[in-house]
Amino acid sequence: MKTAEILEQFKSGKLDLETALAELQGFQDLGHSRVDLAREDRNGTPEVIYGEGKTPQQISEIMQSMANRQQNILVTRLESESADQLCEIFPETTYNPLARVLTHRHRAPYPANTKVALICAGTSDLPVAEEARLTLEFYGNPVETVYDAGVAGLHRLMASVDTIRTCRVVIVVAGMEGALPSVVGGLVNAPVIAVPTSVGYGSSFDGLSALLGMLNSCASGLSVVNIDNGFGAGFLANRINRL
Amino acid sequence: MKTAEILEQFKSGKLDLETALAELQGFQDLGHSRVDLAREDRNGTPEVIYGEGKTPQQISEIMQSMANRQQNILVTRLESESADQLCEIFPETTYNPLARVLTHRHRAPYPANTKVALICAGTSDLPVAEEARLTLEFYGNPVETVYDAGVAGLHRLMASVDTIRTCRVVIVVAGMEGALPSVVGGLVNAPVIAVPTSVGYGSSFDGLSALLGMLNSCASGLSVVNIDNGFGAGFLANRINRL
Amino acid sequence: MKTAEILEQFKSGKLDLETALAELQGFQDLGHSRVDLAREDRNGTPEVIYGEGKTPQQISEIMQSMANRQQNILVTRLESESADQLCEIFPETTYNPLARVLTHRHRAPYPANTKVALICAGTSDLPVAEEARLTLEFYGNPVETVYDAGVAGLHRLMASVDTIRTCRVVIVVAGMEGALPSVVGGLVNAPVIAVPTSVGYGSSFDGLSALLGMLNSCASGLSVVNIDNGFGAGFLANRINRL
Amino acid sequence: MKTAEILEQFKSGKLDLETALAELQGFQDLGHSRVDLAREDRNGTPEVIYGEGKTPQQISEIMQSMANRQQNILVTRLESESADQLCEIFPETTYNPLARVLTHRHRAPYPANTKVALICAGTSDLPVAEEARLTLEFYGNPVETVYDAGVAGLHRLMASVDTIRTCRVVIVVAGMEGALPSVVGGLVNAPVIAVPTSVGYGSSFDGLSALLGMLNSCASGLSVVNIDNGFGAGFLANRINRL
Amino acid sequence: MKTAEILEQFKSGKLDLETALAELQGFQDLGHSRVDLAREDRNGTPEVIYGEGKTPQQISEIMQSMANRQQNILVTRLESESADQLCEIFPETTYNPLARVLTHRHRAPYPANTKVALICAGTSDLPVAEEARLTLEFYGNPVETVYDAGVAGLHRLMASVDTIRTCRVVIVVAGMEGALPSVVGGLVNAPVIAVPTSVGYGSSFDGLSALLGMLNSCASGLSVVNIDNGFGAGFLANRINRL
Amino acid sequence: MKTAEILEQFKSGKLDLETALAELQGFQDLGHSRVDLAREDRNGTPEVIYGEGKTPQQISEIMQSMANRQQNILVTRLESESADQLCEIFPETTYNPLARVLTHRHRAPYPANTKVALICAGTSDLPVAEEARLTLEFYGNPVETVYDAGVAGLHRLMASVDTIRTCRVVIVVAGMEGALPSVVGGLVNAPVIAVPTSVGYGSSFDGLSALLGMLNSCASGLSVVNIDNGFGAGFLANRINRL
Amino acid sequence: MKTAEILEQFKSGKLDLETALAELQGFQDLGHSRVDLAREDRNGTPEVIYGEGKTPQQISEIMQSMANRQQNILVTRLESESADQLCEIFPETTYNPLARVLTHRHRAPYPANTKVALICAGTSDLPVAEEARLTLEFYGNPVETVYDAGVAGLHRLMASVDTIRTCRVVIVVAGMEGALPSVVGGLVNAPVIAVPTSVGYGSSFDGLSALLGMLNSCASGLSVVNIDNGFGAGFLANRINRL
Amino acid sequence: MKTAEILEQFKSGKLDLETALAELQGFQDLGHSRVDLAREDRNGTPEVIYGEGKTPQQISEIMQSMANRQQNILVTRLESESADQLCEIFPETTYNPLARVLTHRHRAPYPANTKVALICAGTSDLPVAEEARLTLEFYGNPVETVYDAGVAGLHRLMASVDTIRTCRVVIVVAGMEGALPSVVGGLVNAPVIAVPTSVGYGSSFDGLSALLGMLNSCASGLSVVNIDNGFGAGFLANRINRL
Repeated sequence: MKTAEILEQFKSGKLDLETALAELQGFQDLGHSRVDLAREDRNGTPEVIYGEGKTPQQISEIMQSMANRQQNILVTRLESESADQLCEIFPETTYNPLARVLTHRHRAPYPANTKVALICAGTSDLPVAEEARLTLEFYGNPVETVYDAGVAGLHRLMASVDTIRTCRVVIVVAGMEGALPSVVGGLVNAPVIAVPTSVGYGSSFDGLSALLGMLNSCASGLSVVNIDNGFGAGFLANRINRL
Repeated sequence: MKTAEILEQFKSGKLDLETALAELQGFQDLGHSRVDLAREDRNGTPEVIYGEGKTPQQISEIMQSMANRQQNILVTRLESESADQLCEIFPETTYNPLARVLTHRHRAPYPANTKVALICAGTSDLPVAEEARLTLEFYGNPVETVYDAGVAGLHRLMASVDTIRTCRVVIVVAGMEGALPSVVGGLVNAPVIAVPTSVGYGSSFDGLSALLGMLNSCASGLSVVNIDNGFGAGFLANRINRL
Repeated sequence: MKTAEILEQFKSGKLDLETALAELQGFQDLGHSRVDLAREDRNGTPEVIYGEGKTPQQISEIMQSMANRQQNILVTRLESESADQLCEIFPETTYNPLARVLTHRHRAPYPANTKVALICAGTSDLPVAEEARLTLEFYGNPVETVYDAGVAGLHRLMASVDTIRTCRVVIVVAGMEGALPSVVGGLVNAPVIAVPTSVGYGSSFDGLSALLGMLNSCASGLSVVNIDNGFGAGFLANRINRL
Repeated sequence: MKTAEILEQFKSGKLDLETALAELQGFQDLGHSRVDLAREDRNGTPEVIYGEGKTPQQISEIMQSMANRQQNILVTRLESESADQLCEIFPETTYNPLARVLTHRHRAPYPANTKVALICAGTSDLPVAEEARLTLEFYGNPVETVYDAGVAGLHRLMASVDTIRTCRVVIVVAGMEGALPSVVGGLVNAPVIAVPTSVGYGSSFDGLSALLGMLNSCASGLSVVNIDNGFGAGFLANRINRL
Repeated sequence: MKTAEILEQFKSGKLDLETALAELQGFQDLGHSRVDLAREDRNGTPEVIYGEGKTPQQISEIMQSMANRQQNILVTRLESESADQLCEIFPETTYNPLARVLTHRHRAPYPANTKVALICAGTSDLPVAEEARLTLEFYGNPVETVYDAGVAGLHRLMASVDTIRTCRVVIVVAGMEGALPSVVGGLVNAPVIAVPTSVGYGSSFDGLSALLGMLNSCASGLSVVNIDNGFGAGFLANRINRL
Repeated sequence: MKTAEILEQFKSGKLDLETALAELQGFQDLGHSRVDLAREDRNGTPEVIYGEGKTPQQISEIMQSMANRQQNILVTRLESESADQLCEIFPETTYNPLARVLTHRHRAPYPANTKVALICAGTSDLPVAEEARLTLEFYGNPVETVYDAGVAGLHRLMASVDTIRTCRVVIVVAGMEGALPSVVGGLVNAPVIAVPTSVGYGSSFDGLSALLGMLNSCASGLSVVNIDNGFGAGFLANRINRL
Repeated sequence: MKTAEILEQFKSGKLDLETALAELQGFQDLGHSRVDLAREDRNGTPEVIYGEGKTPQQISEIMQSMANRQQNILVTRLESESADQLCEIFPETTYNPLARVLTHRHRAPYPANTKVALICAGTSDLPVAEEARLTLEFYGNPVETVYDAGVAGLHRLMASVDTIRTCRVVIVVAGMEGALPSVVGGLVNAPVIAVPTSVGYGSSFDGLSALLGMLNSCASGLSVVNIDNGFGAGFLANRINRL
Repeated sequence: MKTAEILEQFKSGKLDLETALAELQGFQDLGHSRVDLAREDRNGTPEVIYGEGKTPQQISEIMQSMANRQQNILVTRLESESADQLCEIFPETTYNPLARVLTHRHRAPYPANTKVALICAGTSDLPVAEEARLTLEFYGNPVETVYDAGVAGLHRLMASVDTIRTCRVVIVVAGMEGALPSVVGGLVNAPVIAVPTSVGYGSSFDGLSALLGMLNSCASGLSVVNIDNGFGAGFLANRINRL
């Protein structure tokens, strides 16, 4: 809200004093959290709640603060026990246990006109890929998924290259050696967002091998997000897809 | 199957449309997995299922897809809870909890004429060594095992050198400092596949010490697979043994 | 030489006392080096001289010891200044400055009947690839080279797949993300030896990214040697090619 | 070129046999390099030459192959000694020693309508930032530079926020703790490409600290390229800016 | 106690022999622990008990030794099960499960005149921030907390800058990229103590990213303590605040 | 300068338009650098020039900008070749080649009343210790140096403990295992700033061992700066000493 | 046993065939383990059983093999559940849960004449220190323990220096920064064995900080064993103490 | 010297005031160095000068201080340029450029009765091995060298096992995988000091692989010193050999 609008609403009684002050300073201070009310103005979308390390009580209060403002809510990396508690408090929320994502929508997102390709190398990468898919859909993007198309059987990827080329942005999720983004990067002219996963064992060092592989890709037009950061890839893809 | 064969079988009704399409494109798309039907043609053996990070439901569907094609099935790194569920669905499968390997055979493998030596440094390396042994036997290789022959008591290895020298390929499994492959490498003229294990503590850093030791071996004729990758060693040894 | 043969030659005066003693104990002790005279018996080929960290004087004495026994000599990782000094002492030697390899042959190697494929991802990987090629040729193997066939332009590899499939062993050399061995591994049924190189910068960490990528390959039938170890790959490929 | 076009030109004598073959297979094989002639078709722009680890002779031959096809040429990470040799052979080239970039243009790039913001944290980051700027301009993008706007003096960044917000894509280059991309990410709604640099000492570990910082950014809408990879950031920004 | 005082009290019977000996040598030897009775004389405050890796029995004996001397007791990193046992033995103790801190006071601390600012980047950092707050209050410092003021929404920090500037020392707690201390460091002229936390995932490597970020801060006037070391920051801030 | 003052001086002609604009926005934009004119207001002292990675030309322009405002100038990590060029341009500057520090003073610093203790473990740590000393003196602090008092000969430290205890802040510089700060930390009640150095070899990993040692100190009241960051320690010590 | 003795006992029927064969070849092959019967001859003491990664069944069979030969048995790193099972089978064994050590003695060790000093830095280091103590006593060494004498309170160490100097070998156990061995090393002229422990958190990286600290000690006469390797230190100290 | 002796000599004029004071406090303070005059009393041997990072001027002053007291002088890790300057000032010194060791003796060391075995794995390890040998001889120990006895040719080691078993202490120097100490450790009952070297390339990571290998040795009775620390091994071996 713009300042004038806030003052008007306060004058008219639509906003109480505390809320008006929060809106003016751009955040509500819950003690444990300063909910960023101005993020949508600055960044185009409201704050997203990182679930890890927060108590259900804290998350619930943040959600309430956002719900009071009719914001769509996305909580990532949320364990199912916490999700159960939150779903009781906010019955309209949806929780995906594979992706550990909870969503709570007050209005449908404005639909994007162009598609995002979401490719993953193996079935074990699905939790991360699904986090990306849910994020993309939360923001209203049509998604083409190509799951389990790793480089050990290239024809599985090649069968979908034409579909991938119809998309405006490409996300590639892979663990182990993380080679798939390089191969995809050599085949398309869309921006490629590479997501390393912690899938693997031994010298994969919890995703380090995939991460390094992607950072050192010989293909151009690629960039990388954190290990297992399906959300970040989906968020960025939405942003690029909206340009 | 070759293309003509697929078309013929489709025409004759042996294959339904979906199966024929899958065969033509070389994989069956299960949504979560693209089962590689052409791998045997390209790589000599059907796909192997990496069990870690997959749900029993997903593995079961992949197995069904392979079983429909009478392929022998090998699942690695499978936890016993998942194995229990799969053994109920596929009663003919065998599960080895020490090696975490599940196998399901439709036909006996073509037996190899030459042997593979499988040496491990300590008793604690057995889970990895056994994964290698089961893989070797799954593909039909006779195996000579020499278990617990670490360098702290060289005579335990020396007593078996003549046996080892009768083998065409040698696998050496070791944790801690991973010195055994170098010593074996200095005694034989067969290719040596070194498998570092995560056996150890402290500065073994979950197998890093053994891995680095093997990569830096002063003996020639050696190559290395991932930490704890008994399967990979067995698979490669079978490939070399079949040359 | 067998023990009886040594004794006979000593009796007949063909061997002096010192040489006979060296042969009997299997090495000649030069003080700074114990030249392994029995390696060919145990490992199929004579010792190879690792050039790094040795003075030209030391290398020269080792070479002399081997030359006295008519052994073919291979020196790796030798700087050109040292090579210049050695070429003066041993005029028949050949030095390749790109691969930093010096060779000195007393007899032609027994030619292999089957070929080794040698693939590298980029032009910058040539020093390592050439070390492998020279090693392969030193031991008498025909080599098919496919240079600069990285995954960013897959058709460059695909154009040579048929040629590669005619080879009995495959070496794949790659830096940066080290993805090429996985892709090749998915296309062939020969053993694949992966060689990570230190080509790259930043988070390639002098070859670590390529090394980890190869160790975590989703393709089976692959094993890995040390970073930049073209020699080791060539040596092992020769051994497998001779099976 | 499309296949029909190649055949026509071959028939009419415009292309000789060797060139026609190269075009048909999509690359020219120089022995040491397979110049990717089809990259522009697949990826939108011709191949870029990575200068590190290549001899001037090799680079010269690749450049000649591209020049023969009237492609614009970009060589990155090229030392000045090599550049001097190449500038003699190709007099129209331009070399920027700070960015270690050599360019050779046959036609002006098609100008982009929207701008890219290029921000760097400190003066010492200029070599990397300039590599990004030259890449952006090579591909025809207008660039807004904001140099030396590190977080220790936020007002230096704030003074340019309005300008930055007029840009469609944002590149942020930073060494040391790499905090700047997070701060910028919190202020804009354009995609942010973060480039860690090796500027720093001690526990910066040659850019590792900046790299990790950027990968773990609490701001959304950010992705990361390799340490010191100004080219990669510029290339990707061009690609996004062209959507 | 000074030596003369100890002797006097021993003579008068106030101290028994064992206690007098302990006081004279400056520690009481419990077998498993040498309780440092002289620490307050040397360092200004009594010993603090590091709870991790100690049994409740051991901690209880150390606490008894300190309680006998009327020392205020602070136990850090104490699991709740152990705390429960100790609270039964020492009913007056207080345990904070979020911060895992147990305190037992015999006298109120001498109150400080100036304030310490305690800022944290996100809600998930609260366990560490609260450990710092409890430490500061244990030693008698007024604390201004600014929680959840991370750099992705700078206005949340800016709203509190005036408050922060009224403090004599500043503690900044942050996980992930750890950028907040640099930003705060650029805004104040008080000493800044940066506390990296293990909040994050993937390439945060359990706090390494935040730690490196803080060590490489481009802002001056900053120093760093161990990952998750809220206690250490609070302790040092008290020491500086008392100057 | 305050805004009103700037406007007055501009009106009176003391400031030209460009300078007035720079003062108003708080920095002067040199293209390559945004010289922070407001840092003294915010942080108490003017900007310090980090010499590494900057050309002499760039440094010279920054110095000129600061000199125009009569600010005292400190350049750190400056190689002697660059220093020579700068000393020609600014003849009044002083360069210390051991510490690689260049200073240029327009006015004497306001002298501090209390002392800073500066201890180093070994003679090889002197370059870092001297950087700290020069920084401390640049800001007007009396310094007590205790050089070469490493823990292998504790009496060398003990002989100076009384002197150290007369100081308000203590800096401890050490390489190798970095044990000295812990020992000093156990003996004093002043804040201790620990500076790890890259002195050492092998597993010191360029200062990593000392850095980790200091971060994990069992002594309280300690904080750590970057490896070899003598400047940072001196800067922070001055700030604390001025409280 | 010497060969002649074995033959004699076999002839007389004291040894059966299998046992005689095992004795002749120097080990008993249990399939999963090759129990080293010749270790005492070569190394002075029988094999020690590393408990981690072995099943109780495997350990039991190894113990039986050793018990049959009246050897004293030491099992390290044994979890209490396994210990419970083994204690049922071998009722005379003793298990120490803190040190995770199980011992089974058939004869008292030959007592050493000189003492070993065993110092640890903190109470949390006790599990490792006790593993060392039990090992020392298993081999018959008198031990002087000085527990919780870390460098933050040096007088706790100084009070015991005279006692320590009466010992022939010194073991120093420490976690966190691992500074104590350096300090002790500067005070004695006996060999010092340093044992890093995993005590600590955050950047202690499970003992890495202590390990690196000890390897880089500025004190001479020190050597280091693996992290948490109390057994190894005790074993080596016994060996030195017996010289 | 004892206190009474110092006072007597001062009274009699043998010592001037400054020297007497230095002797009383146990060190001479040269400003840059506090020469430890009491080390021989505490540790059995005088201080050793670590040459790295010290200027020739500093070393010269330390040597003069020691020479004035007729102490034998050992300088390690000294570059030849510095050595040349020092040899001019102290003509009786001896410098070994391979080991980078300078020695200056005022009296012959008291000869040891028992021998130290010094084994190295490869010729490239000689600089480190020779540093150990010179240290051992500096302190008067007879040394048996077995150079170039790496595990790739075990018979080279076996030929010398009887000799090695006549020694009281064993030093084993090895780079690359560092396997030799484990093998030697399995063959002897003397204490084994393992010295990792930086010999190797790629994933040897400058000696890390050898270091980790040795720390994780499966052989008991072994301890490890820093990478390339030949001096440390020699020093400790002398100390043990003198027990």
